[in-house]
Amino acid sequence: MWRFSLTDAVSAQIEQKMLDELYADFEDAGLMPLWTQREDLMPMSPQSEAVPHLWRWSELLPIAERSGRLVPVGRGGERRAIALSNPGLPGSPYATPTLWAAIQYLGPREVAPSHRHSQGAFRFVVDGEGVWTNVDGDAVAMRRGDLLLTPGWAFHEHHNVADRPMAWLDGLDIPLVAGLDAGFFEFGPDGLSTRATPQRSRGERLWGHPGLRPISQPDRLNSPLVAYRWEHTDAALTAQLELEDEDAPGVIEPGHAGVRFSNPTTGKDALVTMRTEMRRLRAGTRTAPVRTVGSAVWQVFDGEATATVGDKVFEIATGDLFVVPSWCEVGLTARTQVDLFRFSDEPVYEALGLARTSRGEQK
Amino acid sequence: MWRFSLTDAVSAQIEQKMLDELYADFEDAGLMPLWTQREDLMPMSPQSEAVPHLWRWSELLPIAERSGRLVPVGRGGERRAIALSNPGLPGSPYATPTLWAAIQYLGPREVAPSHRHSQGAFRFVVDGEGVWTNVDGDAVAMRRGDLLLTPGWAFHEHHNVADRPMAWLDGLDIPLVAGLDAGFFEFGPDGLSTRATPQRSRGERLWGHPGLRPISQPDRLNSPLVAYRWEHTDAALTAQLELEDEDAPGVIEPGHAGVRFSNPTTGKDALVTMRTEMRRLRAGTRTAPVRTVGSAVWQVFDGEATATVGDKVFEIATGDLFVVPSWCEVGLTARTQVDLFRFSDEPVYEALGLARTSRGEQK
Amino acid sequence: MWRFSLTDAVSAQIEQKMLDELYADFEDAGLMPLWTQREDLMPMSPQSEAVPHLWRWSELLPIAERSGRLVPVGRGGERRAIALSNPGLPGSPYATPTLWAAIQYLGPREVAPSHRHSQGAFRFVVDGEGVWTNVDGDAVAMRRGDLLLTPGWAFHEHHNVADRPMAWLDGLDIPLVAGLDAGFFEFGPDGLSTRATPQRSRGERLWGHPGLRPISQPDRLNSPLVAYRWEHTDAALTAQLELEDEDAPGVIEPGHAGVRFSNPTTGKDALVTMRTEMRRLRAGTRTAPVRTVGSAVWQVFDGEATATVGDKVFEIATGDLFVVPSWCEVGLTARTQVDLFRFSDEPVYEALGLARTSRGEQK
Amino acid sequence: MWRFSLTDAVSAQIEQKMLDELYADFEDAGLMPLWTQREDLMPMSPQSEAVPHLWRWSELLPIAERSGRLVPVGRGGERRAIALSNPGLPGSPYATPTLWAAIQYLGPREVAPSHRHSQGAFRFVVDGEGVWTNVDGDAVAMRRGDLLLTPGWAFHEHHNVADRPMAWLDGLDIPLVAGLDAGFFEFGPDGLSTRATPQRSRGERLWGHPGLRPISQPDRLNSPLVAYRWEHTDAALTAQLELEDEDAPGVIEPGHAGVRFSNPTTGKDALVTMRTEMRRLRAGTRTAPVRTVGSAVWQVFDGEATATVGDKVFEIATGDLFVVPSWCEVGLTARTQVDLFRFSDEPVYEALGLARTSRGEQK
Repeated sequence: MWRFSLTDAVSAQIEQKMLDELYADFEDAGLMPLWTQREDLMPMSPQSEAVPHLWRWSELLPIAERSGRLVPVGRGGERRAIALSNPGLPGSPYATPTLWAAIQYLGPREVAPSHRHSQGAFRFVVDGEGVWTNVDGDAVAMRRGDLLLTPGWAFHEHHNVADRPMAWLDGLDIPLVAGLDAGFFEFGPDGLSTRATPQRSRGERLWGHPGLRPISQPDRLNSPLVAYRWEHTDAALTAQLELEDEDAPGVIEPGHAGVRFSNPTTGKDALVTMRTEMRRLRAGTRTAPVRTVGSAVWQVFDGEATATVGDKVFEIATGDLFVVPSWCEVGLTARTQVDLFRFSDEPVYEALGLARTSRGEQK
Repeated sequence: MWRFSLTDAVSAQIEQKMLDELYADFEDAGLMPLWTQREDLMPMSPQSEAVPHLWRWSELLPIAERSGRLVPVGRGGERRAIALSNPGLPGSPYATPTLWAAIQYLGPREVAPSHRHSQGAFRFVVDGEGVWTNVDGDAVAMRRGDLLLTPGWAFHEHHNVADRPMAWLDGLDIPLVAGLDAGFFEFGPDGLSTRATPQRSRGERLWGHPGLRPISQPDRLNSPLVAYRWEHTDAALTAQLELEDEDAPGVIEPGHAGVRFSNPTTGKDALVTMRTEMRRLRAGTRTAPVRTVGSAVWQVFDGEATATVGDKVFEIATGDLFVVPSWCEVGLTARTQVDLFRFSDEPVYEALGLARTSRGEQK
Repeated sequence: MWRFSLTDAVSAQIEQKMLDELYADFEDAGLMPLWTQREDLMPMSPQSEAVPHLWRWSELLPIAERSGRLVPVGRGGERRAIALSNPGLPGSPYATPTLWAAIQYLGPREVAPSHRHSQGAFRFVVDGEGVWTNVDGDAVAMRRGDLLLTPGWAFHEHHNVADRPMAWLDGLDIPLVAGLDAGFFEFGPDGLSTRATPQRSRGERLWGHPGLRPISQPDRLNSPLVAYRWEHTDAALTAQLELEDEDAPGVIEPGHAGVRFSNPTTGKDALVTMRTEMRRLRAGTRTAPVRTVGSAVWQVFDGEATATVGDKVFEIATGDLFVVPSWCEVGLTARTQVDLFRFSDEPVYEALGLARTSRGEQK
Repeated sequence: MWRFSLTDAVSAQIEQKMLDELYADFEDAGLMPLWTQREDLMPMSPQSEAVPHLWRWSELLPIAERSGRLVPVGRGGERRAIALSNPGLPGSPYATPTLWAAIQYLGPREVAPSHRHSQGAFRFVVDGEGVWTNVDGDAVAMRRGDLLLTPGWAFHEHHNVADRPMAWLDGLDIPLVAGLDAGFFEFGPDGLSTRATPQRSRGERLWGHPGLRPISQPDRLNSPLVAYRWEHTDAALTAQLELEDEDAPGVIEPGHAGVRFSNPTTGKDALVTMRTEMRRLRAGTRTAPVRTVGSAVWQVFDGEATATVGDKVFEIATGDLFVVPSWCEVGLTARTQVDLFRFSDEPVYEALGLARTSRGEQK
């Protein structure tokens, strides 16, 4: 060490030069130091780039209708689906870092062709009817309030048999699967696999009986019950609130009923990568604010409420969609009785030991 | 070794004497040799002492009615239940080495008092109505074709609100739990926990919606859905046969539909120790003969059939019960369309790695 | 109701006669009432017929040696195994209602022929060496302190290559499998599958590395690690007591170390139906008394202790065996440092939701 | 439809204008169409932006040494870790979209301070010794060939007690956890939790005995065996090749041995989000090319080989690191006997139903 013979300034200059060279050599060698960016890489708590955001149904539907007039559906594009693009993830068609949410629009007599992909998907119908989704050849009617599944790698196609267009919410794990480089895609045959338009799909006829399993059928990773009908969801929510009136267990918290769509072969989530739920709040209910690791998309199915998401306050009504980024506090106040559909990526975190929830007090 | 100097006869005598002493000393020391009884202890395949046997409903019901007139229900005896006693297990009230099956009979306005026990139990109703079973305070109506659960350690009591008596099948794992020395028993309070007589129990209102789970409720070892109603079971069986007509999967084998009562929190059997199922055969169907490790009890719910169980042939009709011992071949031929309730101990064998099934060809 | 015209005595006589006829008709119809025997069938807590009992090694070994002189080993009898017969289960060769425990004895150069069975088995060696057990062709040395597995349906045979006899403890689930009518048995080929006498079996070479799994091998229901060597067991117990000295976690309770033999593919018990464990008590340790649903057999491996089992007190030393029936309290006081091997049926109860433990205070 | 009255050109102009307006309105509304980017979002098979890449130890080590002279270790930066930055992910310090791999360098007597985070981590030591990692207060020696775990949310700190620097490989799931917005971070106390330098950690003393579980310890999501020592890994690999010579099962394919570091409480991967393995190839072995969904990082521990990764061919020797992006074919040819450490994200895909493997033929 010969530093003593140099002035401090010179010494500092030399050191800086050596550091500059080191950092340049890092870059040449395909290396990056941790110490200069540790805080960004490993924040004290999740700091999502995604932001809370609201999309109004009253704006979404007209723009979807315009797309219906101007853009055809067909091979290549595959679907007339318009994705919610989180303003915090600019240039990306993702609602959150793991979830895709889109309005899909199908005009009268239109067909969206058959394909399949690793990505899991569902449809939730806030309004309308007349479209059938064929899932591996099983014709599944789509009606108001229904949740319809197209699990990963199942062939699916949509066709509208009505004279009116129909729009619905598509939920997929596209960003998750993209981030994991895990997606495969395959085009299906060009014609429809079936033009049948039954009221109940085969999946429902086989699996849609409470607590009853066909003896012949094995366990599945995703639910074989391809459709969850509004009449059942509504009845289950109604029952929870009635049980609350009788002081019997059922609701999540006072005035707040909730069901989870589940896989009857395992009791777990209907889809292996996405949680799907319906909530009902009595008019006037204020939910306890909750923070969860993982993100969610909510859509009002019916009614009006105020949603507080982080530092944003959204006045929401039927059809409106909002996103809750990871670890962002969410609380709801029901202005009327309100039903909300919610989907999230929580099964991913539970499977990987990364789940955390912090429940605040009800205000 | 000095045996050369003895005659063979003397030598044999000495050896026999030494052996006799050895076996006597075994007994004194609390010991028993394997080699004299290996074949009995470890047969080449299961050799149940239980035998195939048939009990006719036309004989059971009158004897139950006589018991109703002569024997009171109350504390101590607890239940007016008459057990099927397998002729191969003489002196024992067991249908098979693991399963208890009994006809329980409750007269007009009678009450069977509250208790709970480690043993899992269910009721299956071949006919009648008017009784409510309260399970941990939840009033569960009992009607024709219904399966009602009282899982291990749930308090339960029965009361008949009708002017007519009612009889039904009780299934329990009493022999299994006795063989395992695992049973605990506790008397409940003396009065009824509730006199409510709702059409649907709280368990059904909370859990009886296909594929929907209350978000607030955790997994359970036994099904929280305390009642499986005939209307659902019938619809599920009907659907399987219709799907068969459409060449879609569903039935177990041609003409043979079947559902398993399951736990919606896990997708597994409704009860942790017992499998419960309903089968429907089209008129004329012959099932492929099957041998299974583990025993089963069948009850005809409706219709007529011929059951071949081992070397026995039973002509069976509504209400008739028969047992199938372990590894005993069973085949059915439907003379009319026939519905059969079946319960077995198969979950035990599956949990312990002891399950085996051999499926013969359909004749 | 015309009873008013009869005297009470006559009325009682008539009733008794009708009851007698009812009970006779029960018997004729293959029926038995619950109400007369409810207490026996469903006791308030487990009332095992098995009783606590002690077998002294000093008595077992000589009687085994006499058997060795008088009784050959070979086809049919298969093994020179002398079973502990619980005095509470008279006429039965069972240590408890679910567990078989026997001393097996093999003379110099003797061979016990190949067979396989559904019943799971292990060997525990309290003393001696020189025998190899071939498990599906894998030669497994048997030495003092070792636990050797022969899981259900694995072919196995024993041969003594030494000039001295060898005796060891056999543990099996024979009573459990018999009670369940679940046993299959098959004779193997007549000659030895191998005469190799390696120090380490293939199973150990493949699986006997802490925390390391061969990538090529799938999960198994029973442990593929066929031998658990004393040197490892001893080291693990020693380490726990040393960790206790450092105030680090490890021991079960003060002065009481314990390891469970486990399946490296699942982390669960080495055998699917039996728990196997080794315990070490420091001299002077008194364990907290424990009651468990399910039964156990203990063998002193080394040292001296007092075992209190229910109302029995056993002074025990190396080789001594005692049984603990279900729900019978057991406590140990170590007179010297003492090592005890223990096996039980607890995995059965855990799988079936029947497990219960009550831990008393350390006295 | 009045288009007939316009020229085609005018009509096309109008349509284009309307489309342009639609796309502009999409942007204003926070929406993006699927149909223009479907192929990028959902490719036919995984198209990772990450590329196969090689980092030579001979370049890494000197640059790490220069960092050691110029950059201090301490609070804030926390670690002198230099990350492999995949050239396909420019500006990012990530080896693959899910995996972080870095060389960490600690000078003589240096200390890297205590912290904990949701991210799971391990250290693999290609050379050197003298550093202890304290994991929740348990002092874990780091030596050549060892794998050391610091599971998510365990406090950990490193300190070098030697007069020589030490460098090793750090593996973490930082990109995965970042992509999922799931990371929490917490600083630990400033001083070392312990200055002890035992040869074996408490975790090893408690858990490092093959097939033996401490009875007192529950299951864990991540392995409680904090250190996997080279002597065991080496012995396991050696044994597999010896077993291959005896025609016994063990190797993955001819000449290719492999062990997986596992969690002794579950038999699953040692870390819930990362697979860690060691492979050994005999000199001359060519592995069958494999494509797997998910990415991996390999480091040569000892020996020389040729790795073909996608369209790249790497000549690799001790210390060299290379990455295999998702669904990129990898094959190895051993020029000498060669040992390779490998870590990947496969447990994530298996948990989410996204795993796929395609095994080519051995060339």
